This record gives sequence, C-alpha cells and structure tokens, in this order.
Amino acid sequence: MLNRTKEVDKLKKFEEKTLSSQKIFTGKVISLQVDDVELPNGKTSKREIIKHPGAVAVIAITDDGRIVMVEQYRKAMERSLVEIPAGKLEPGEEPLKTAERELEEETGYVCERMEHVISFYTSPGFADELVHVYVAHQLSKKEDAASLDEDEFVEVIELTLEEAQQYIAEEKIYDAKTAYAVQYLQLMEALQK
Amino acid sequence: MLNRTKEVDKLKKFEEKTLSSQKIFTGKVISLQVDDVELPNGKTSKREIIKHPGAVAVIAITDDGRIVMVEQYRKAMERSLVEIPAGKLEPGEEPLKTAERELEEETGYVCERMEHVISFYTSPGFADELVHVYVAHQLSKKEDAASLDEDEFVEVIELTLEEAQQYIAEEKIYDAKTAYAVQYLQLMEALQK
Repeated sequence: MLNRTKEVDKLKKFEEKTLSSQKIFTGKVISLQVDDVELPNGKTSKREIIKHPGAVAVIAITDDGRIVMVEQYRKAMERSLVEIPAGKLEPGEEPLKTAERELEEETGYVCERMEHVISFYTSPGFADELVHVYVAHQLSKKEDAASLDEDEFVEVIELTLEEAQQYIAEEKIYDAKTAYAVQYLQLMEALQK
Repeated sequence: MLNRTKEVDKLKKFEEKTLSSQKIFTGKVISLQVDDVELPNGKTSKREIIKHPGAVAVIAITDDGRIVMVEQYRKAMERSLVEIPAGKLEPGEEPLKTAERELEEETGYVCERMEHVISFYTSPGFADELVHVYVAHQLSKKEDAASLDEDEFVEVIELTLEEAQQYIAEEKIYDAKTAYAVQYLQLMEALQK
C-alpha cells in the first residue's frame, strides 16, 4: 500500500495543476485544449494539448522473411511515407483487436498469433497519442479481406530487412514507429547470431 | 534528372490536393489547421493537421556507461515520464545546435562530439513534428551550464542499460524516442558481442 502510494507520487513529480482548461477544437481524429497550469514554483504557464484516441502498429513478417509495409499519403507532411500497418483505436476497442483489424484492412493478411512488443507515447510534449506495437506471427493472405476506410488509400510493399534499412537511409521510411520496428528486427537478428 | 523527377513523383503517391485550408489555432508550440482535400478517387475529406517546429533528442552516455535521462511532468498525460534529453528547435536553429543546447540546459553535460543517428516523424497521421536523434560522445559536466526555460522542471536520472529496460517494463520510460534510444543501445551492445 505504501509502495503503491509512493509509485503514484512518483508519477506526479513536478505536477502542473490545472487552473482552467479551454476546449479549442474537437475533430474526427484529434481535439485540442489549452490548459492554464500552476508550475512547481507557483508561477503559471499555458499547455497546448492534443487528445488522440490511441493507435496500434503491426510488425508483420511474411513466410519468406519480408516486412509488410504500406505506402500512404500523409497530408501533414505533404508527401507519402512507407510505414508498418497502423491505425486508430475505435471507441472501446481492445488494441489487440485493432491490430488484427488494421493488418487485415490495410494488407489483406491475417495472422495466427499477435504478440505485444511495446507501447509508447509518440509526442509527449503536446499529445497523448499512445501507440501499441504488435508483432504478427504466421501470416496468411485472406481472399475476402476486410477493406479500408473510404478515405484511405494505401499500397502494400514487402521489404527485406536490408531494403527497409535502405528505405530509412533514403527517408522513404521516416516515422518513429516504423524506425522502431526496423531496429527491433535488426536487434532480433543480432541476438540470434 | 529523370530519376529525380521519378523520386518526387513517388513522394506524391495518392496525393491529396488541398481544396481549402482553415487555420483554427496558433499557439506557442503548435498550430492547428483543417484542410479540405480531394482524394485520389475524386471524393473529398477533411484532414486535421498539427504544425510543430521540430525537435531534437540526445542519447548521452556517461564515462561509466550510464544513459542520461530526465524526468519531467507531461501535462497531456497528467503524469511524469523519464525521457532522453530533448527539446524544440528555435526558429532558424540548426538541429545539431539545438541538441548541444538542450543537452546542456537539461542535464548540465556538454560533449566533445555529437553524431546524427536518425530523424523521424513522431505522429505522421496528424502532425508534422520531426525529431532528430543524436548520440553525444565524451560527456563532461559543465560548472556554469546554461539553464532551463522558466516553465521547465526536470530531474536528471542516470540509468544503466539494464535499468532503462526495466523502466520500459514499468512504463516509467514510455515514449517513442526514448524507446528507440534504449533499443539502439541494446542493438549496439548486441552487435559488439
């Protein structure tokens, strides 16, 4: 009990108490609020905060050892990126289910077993987006796979680990979760040797 | 020349043309806009986009092999996190300079050599934040180190690689750039064996 209290205290180090919170925008993906906060030294400041439902990302390897990626247009950067399959959590959806759903919708693959690797906040300085990363084992192509959302356009690309590292060097792969995934596979390979 | 054109075309795969763009909010860290876009199939959709100045993060290892981390409160999550030193780019600032500045301000360490490891977008689905990750070599403590911004409160924590992996398991380390950094050091260690 004491330990538990201590643990919670620890998470509150340098806590910034909310003095007021102003909702600026509520969209279909994100919402924005600005909080007035009291700092540990008693002064006040403003924090700009994006709320996001959370997401999953899937490291999926084919029988012949290729990593399943999707190329898609990312409006915020005005360019396309090659990423591991990923998608937002639906309200009340278990991340594991989201992972299975997004893998099928974006790539047509289903898997025998989905294993949790890590979860992380992507941009803790301004957003609460938490991404849950899974690795999918024993893939098979599904004939009548579930299809994409009507505003999603992706192309499936299957890369060897060496090709994926080259894509990082060329900045075709250029996002945190996919960089993590490629490094994860490099580490797995290095540990097996 | 032809290759260059092809390369640029490639980045425009599934391009979403902007029909109109509405600025919703401009803050001190982020701004928010909503774009009406034309999809590849001719239909229209809305994209919610956060603009961010970009950031750096520094993997810094002490002479006795400990990773320099900072614990700080993250309002978006209402908890503190243990992260590698990081900070936003100032307007016109070279990322390398930002990395040196943030390392000194947040930890009191300066380094002999700063090496670029990777850059990645943290949340490509809704934000253009690009984080440049560096590794700092040959650290030394500076007596009269530059100090933090007046609304920043951090505690420096130095962890062995094993402790950092434990912190990930306990979700004290819980963000993408720090998870990447710890995995990077695991990979370096595995490759040396």
